[in-house]
Amino acid sequence: MKAYILTIGDEILIGQIVDTNSSWMSRELNLNGIEVVGKGSVGDNARAIVEGIERASAVADVVIMTGGLGPTKDDVTKKTLASYFNSEMGFDEGTYALIEQYFNKIGRAIPDSMRDQATLPVRARILVNKVGSAPGMWFEEKNKIYISLPGVPFEMEYLMRSEVIPRLLTCFERRPIVHRTILTACEGESAIAKRLEAFEDSLPEHIKLAYLPGIGQVRLRLTGVWHGTVMEETSNQLEKEVEQKKMELVSLIPEIVYGFEEESLPVVVGRILLEKGLMLGTAESCTGGYIASQITEVAGASAYFNGSAVAYSYDLKEKILGVQSATLSTYGAVSEECVREMAEGALDALGVDVAIAVSGIAGPGGGTTDKPVGTVWMAVADRTKTYSKRVVFGRDRVKNIQLTSTYALSMLRQFLLD
Amino acid sequence: MKAYILTIGDEILIGQIVDTNSSWMSRELNLNGIEVVGKGSVGDNARAIVEGIERASAVADVVIMTGGLGPTKDDVTKKTLASYFNSEMGFDEGTYALIEQYFNKIGRAIPDSMRDQATLPVRARILVNKVGSAPGMWFEEKNKIYISLPGVPFEMEYLMRSEVIPRLLTCFERRPIVHRTILTACEGESAIAKRLEAFEDSLPEHIKLAYLPGIGQVRLRLTGVWHGTVMEETSNQLEKEVEQKKMELVSLIPEIVYGFEEESLPVVVGRILLEKGLMLGTAESCTGGYIASQITEVAGASAYFNGSAVAYSYDLKEKILGVQSATLSTYGAVSEECVREMAEGALDALGVDVAIAVSGIAGPGGGTTDKPVGTVWMAVADRTKTYSKRVVFGRDRVKNIQLTSTYALSMLRQFLLD
Repeated sequence: MKAYILTIGDEILIGQIVDTNSSWMSRELNLNGIEVVGKGSVGDNARAIVEGIERASAVADVVIMTGGLGPTKDDVTKKTLASYFNSEMGFDEGTYALIEQYFNKIGRAIPDSMRDQATLPVRARILVNKVGSAPGMWFEEKNKIYISLPGVPFEMEYLMRSEVIPRLLTCFERRPIVHRTILTACEGESAIAKRLEAFEDSLPEHIKLAYLPGIGQVRLRLTGVWHGTVMEETSNQLEKEVEQKKMELVSLIPEIVYGFEEESLPVVVGRILLEKGLMLGTAESCTGGYIASQITEVAGASAYFNGSAVAYSYDLKEKILGVQSATLSTYGAVSEECVREMAEGALDALGVDVAIAVSGIAGPGGGTTDKPVGTVWMAVADRTKTYSKRVVFGRDRVKNIQLTSTYALSMLRQFLLD
Repeated sequence: MKAYILTIGDEILIGQIVDTNSSWMSRELNLNGIEVVGKGSVGDNARAIVEGIERASAVADVVIMTGGLGPTKDDVTKKTLASYFNSEMGFDEGTYALIEQYFNKIGRAIPDSMRDQATLPVRARILVNKVGSAPGMWFEEKNKIYISLPGVPFEMEYLMRSEVIPRLLTCFERRPIVHRTILTACEGESAIAKRLEAFEDSLPEHIKLAYLPGIGQVRLRLTGVWHGTVMEETSNQLEKEVEQKKMELVSLIPEIVYGFEEESLPVVVGRILLEKGLMLGTAESCTGGYIASQITEVAGASAYFNGSAVAYSYDLKEKILGVQSATLSTYGAVSEECVREMAEGALDALGVDVAIAVSGIAGPGGGTTDKPVGTVWMAVADRTKTYSKRVVFGRDRVKNIQLTSTYALSMLRQFLLD
């Protein structure tokens, strides 16, 4: 089964939003063995939507649209679909009742515009939206399926999981596709590619390796696709084959691999802390709380994370973390001496077993000849030892903050495993 | 001039990356009066790329492609373009010299794969990439322009700004388009739409209003498009007209408007703090440093931000922020009493003039009947007064953290302006 994702909205074409929906949908469809063969975006106008649908249905069996279903006047998707599929519009009592229930639940009066939300093309099968006001719609024509979903991410996600994917899986036969993702940190794409050159050449035709560079991280994705007959055995065989190649790959670059699939570095670090029964704290200068926020984004972080001292000023480095005034005046805040004192001081100040400290020049201002923008000192300490290192990143402030977090968490991971 | 953006890469179709490039490109093109009429994504295979190019050139004058130019083996764009435009490949000495320079600058040995990077279709005009190894390419055929750029965001951005946009502007006549964006916080799309209903009905045909909902924020975009003859005067007139409508809109919902265009709430709050000469600190529990990281993402934040105490545990709330042990045992950490003490304690603990404090249940666990998941108490204090309020958000952890940050910063803004 081949799918095409069509996102609808002027806001996409003028670049006012980043389209995270289509990435989420692609992942879900792929995990369920539905191949996404293309994506497109068009504006909120009937002609562009129709052209988009026709381009999509030329290459795919299923066209999934998002966006343009809201109660505001710029949303035209529903009317366009009614006209494209030659369907009358009708008021759907069931949908309206659900919208009423929804507004009751969130304790708000139901706006008049909600009568429009419940007026739908009569030919559409309605996909009940329990988390918002715009229902999804499902049309079938000439052996193709056309699905329209709201653009609000959690409404779209709800409808994909509860309605769209389960229904699609009953419609078509699937072809086994196996993905394995290996997560690495602190080494560049080209350097990794060089180390994996012979491995890559040795891969059979039906297994591909792809490099997905991120901020300080590269994800390596192995994809096996079976072109033969679909049978349970074949699928298991492919699974084993890709898994074996994954282990082979990991053995070539073990020190930079921190995890697999959808894990994040904060999740991996959290698991190690939990296993070892250790509490963590962070002492942050240039990252301004970013490392702590990454750690606490993970549910249950309070079991291994006590807190953070974001000490942006000299004063707070002394007052909360106990950095010596002489250290700051002699070496400056961006120095090995300072981050070591920050990390060691954080153990007591935050009442933790292990602490990360970072201090650097995030930029774009503040660089000197000795310490250019992007210079960061980081340290990890427990009660018996302190490790420290210096890294020099680039000139982009936000990127420097994110890189620092990745490198510091990676350093912590090594420290904990040593 | 009409443009179409085609992003290339299997990682997009299987949803392993979120495509931020095309959103950035759309914004830049629009700001320069170049209308983006559509977007598409295809995988790393020659046939899909060719089909994508043909669909794109059917609706646009300029097709801008990104991705698939890396040194790794899964990247096929360059060869596909050479074949599509019937061009031989040739080794480009100039490009290789630049790549050598680039590797010298970053202090690394030049990998062998870089000879491939310098082997390019001879028909292409080379767009010199000074920030990476893959040059851009510019083809012209039958009055259409085809541009291929690397997919690494900052390399693509560099080439768009320094090469692509300046060249495009000399190629076509432009049609005036004027955008104005009004930024609001803490009120939903439907509620705002209701307040703006009469205003929206009063808009002339050539000015449209769009709603762009975000996390706790809605951006309102007015777009004026001129269909007549292109003249400097017309453009100025349209500009005035849209600006006037903007002011009218703001006067209808003044209390929720915090800024305009690309500003963020942390930027706006930072400007007010600077103007008033005040230092800020944050005392964070459920947000785990997220508010501080949002504030310090802004360059120059050290002029008005001293630091943060991320007090995730009861202990740290007492030890660093001076919350009374009795307050915690009587009312719990998620209480009005606790956040008020946190905010007031932060003034001294962080040595600041004004402080934000938040404490809540981010979820997904930890909720009770009295305090369900999503319950957040927040406070803002200076030396003379403390404001506090409770908000109940939803069940999604990351969203609750982001909403808390938006609501707290919005509360701080009101506090500072009162």
